[in-house]
This record gives sequence, structure tokens and C-alpha cells, in this order.
Amino acid sequence: MKLYDCQTAPSPRRVRIFLAEKGVEVPVVAVDLRQGEQLAEPFVQINPWCTVPVLQLDDGTAISECAAICGYLEQLHPEPPLLGRDPQERAIVTMWDRRCELDGFYAVAEVLRNKAKGMKGRALTGPQDVEQIPALVERGQGRVQHFFEALDQQLSDKEFLTGEAFTMADITALVSVDFAGWVKLTLSDELVHAKRWHQAVSARPSAKA
Amino acid sequence: MKLYDCQTAPSPRRVRIFLAEKGVEVPVVAVDLRQGEQLAEPFVQINPWCTVPVLQLDDGTAISECAAICGYLEQLHPEPPLLGRDPQERAIVTMWDRRCELDGFYAVAEVLRNKAKGMKGRALTGPQDVEQIPALVERGQGRVQHFFEALDQQLSDKEFLTGEAFTMADITALVSVDFAGWVKLTLSDELVHAKRWHQAVSARPSAKA
Repeated sequence: MKLYDCQTAPSPRRVRIFLAEKGVEVPVVAVDLRQGEQLAEPFVQINPWCTVPVLQLDDGTAISECAAICGYLEQLHPEPPLLGRDPQERAIVTMWDRRCELDGFYAVAEVLRNKAKGMKGRALTGPQDVEQIPALVERGQGRVQHFFEALDQQLSDKEFLTGEAFTMADITALVSVDFAGWVKLTLSDELVHAKRWHQAVSARPSAKA
Repeated sequence: MKLYDCQTAPSPRRVRIFLAEKGVEVPVVAVDLRQGEQLAEPFVQINPWCTVPVLQLDDGTAISECAAICGYLEQLHPEPPLLGRDPQERAIVTMWDRRCELDGFYAVAEVLRNKAKGMKGRALTGPQDVEQIPALVERGQGRVQHFFEALDQQLSDKEFLTGEAFTMADITALVSVDFAGWVKLTLSDELVHAKRWHQAVSARPSAKA
């Protein structure tokens, strides 16, 4: 098994934190996103969607998408559980993980990819070149702000996003909040619950991954 | 347990097909999306993201997001397996289900929500009003076309998207292809593998759900 990774990219960081929480090490193959290695052979044969992370199994099977990779790893290494301990918890963790990804991570990516000069023609991941749409920058900023507020509200009576246990939902939220810093969007001081949580999850050793 | 549903909407159709394949019936509560029932009390208390489907459990827990709902139902009703039979299959089904959702379903929604007069101010789901961005119509059309081609390529040597068994990935792809018809995007005749597959999955009794 090996993990196609890029140390500076936020998306594979979700898997790196997940592995660190499990105490599991997987050999890493670095993919140089700045040089466009993800868009060229041989990587596109491994993942035609041109994204990292990808977990490649010993039989050659390539698994992309963090949710698919972490779901697989959870089955191989159940402890500590990061996707919930029973069907109901798993459903709630899956729901929150997805909302943090859709409303947080993708919203930040929308701002960054439609704004940064270095992303011209690369407004979406994937094999197709896609032009930037400037109107998406402002739209994305509003979405990120709404995500921050939703986090704060959810955390007003909980230690972690889905309750008393740290889960994949916290990982995705943490990575999304830190990714937002790339486009200068940060948790404002009024969001006391989100800030308290962000400080706590950032202090976990896994956050360095 | 009850399912908040809207008979005319594509997203809850994924759960309806899933349930039909399992042979499971769940009491339904109709949510009138055209009247904006999803944006008002009492529904926003159940799902602050204002989307259907939502599966509400007897203790009041509300699960939104198709992947979370179907993951829960699969654990309660494992047969026939629709999310893969072992960790590796589950990872591949999850990966394809997500790609069909991101590249297919959401791309169609991008076209529809940024184009339709009735969707003005509602370019995204959720509690916030979001203005249409006309440039997203063309971008979305290109994404849908690329999704159709990716489907065709994947199905060139497989009966179903992930192999010999019908899975959640086929459900999401089927619903996405049919949803594309709403914006007049259809599988062209050259996409013989995708068309063969679409005819086969559309003929299953569950497709009427």
C-alpha cells in the first residue's frame, strides 16, 4: 500500500491527520502539484481525476477521494474509531464530514482557484482546463463565512463537531479552516466556540501531519 | 423512522431507488420544494441545510446527505449489498458514487440553478440566497459532457460502474443522467456503453422510484 501525497496540499492533509490519529504509517509517493505532475503520465493512469490523495493497494487498485480512502483505512485499523462507533454515529459523522467538505473546503477552493494568478485556467481540479470566474471569489467568501458560523453554532454545546469524540468531521473542518487562511479568511473573535475548538484540535499531535 | 422526500426532486430519488432495491419501505413525509417548505419552520429545525432527503430516526436524530442516509440503511438492511461487499469494494463504490455526484449531479445542478428563471436568487441550496452567475451555465454544460464521456469509458468493459454488481454508484449516475435531461443534456449516440448501461438500469423496477 502507498499514499500519493503532496505535503503542501490541504486535501491529502486530511488523510495524513487520519493516519496520525490511528498511529499508522503508509509509504508516501510525493506528487509535485506545482509542476503539474498530477496532470501528466504516469499519474493520470493511476487517477484520471488528477487529484491527490490516492491510496494505491498492492494489487494496483487506486482509491481516490478522502472519504473512500479513510473509509477503507478505518476498516483495516478500527481503533481509535474516527468514523463513529455504531450505524447512527457513522451517519452523523458522514453527514458532518460532507457538509464541512462541501460548505468549507470546496468554498475555500472556489475562492482560491478563481482568484490566484497561478490558478489561471485551473479553476477546477481535474483533467480539463477551466477558466476562472471572478464572481465566484465573492460568492465563495460568503460561503466560507457561513461555514464558520455554522461551525460555531454546532460547537456551542459540544466538545467536538459530532459530540464527545474527535472524528473525521473534525479533521475535515480543521483542514478547511486552515485552508481558508490561504485566502486570508479566519475565524473572527466572536466565534468563541469555533475558536476554542480550533485551538484544541490544532494542539493535537496529528495536526502537524 | 421517516423519510422527508419530494417526489419530483432528483436528490431524494437516490434514496428511493436505494430503498426499492433493498425492498424496504419507509414512511414518507412530503416536503413541497416549490413552495419553499424546505426554507421555513419547522423543516429548517430538522435540517438547517434546507435539503431533502432527510431520514429522521425515532429518537428525532435527522440524517441528511444521501451518502449518510444510504450508509445507515445499508447497515440496517445489508442485503442486497449496494455499497460493496468488502473494504476494497466499498472504497471503490464510495469513490465512484462521489465522482458521479460531484462531476455529474452537481454539474447538472450548476446549469439548472444558474439558468432557470424560477431559480433566481437560489443558485445554491441552503439557507442563504445566492444570485445566479450566468457563466456557470456554460461551465456546467462542459462538466456534464465530460461526465458522460467518463461514464462511457468506465462502462466500456463493465456491466455496471464498479463491476458486475449494481451499486449506489449506478444509482447516483442514473439519477444524474436523468437529471441532465432537465437541462436538455442527454447521452449522445456515440456513447454506446453509457447508453447500453442507461437502458439496463432504467429497466430495473427500482428506477420508477
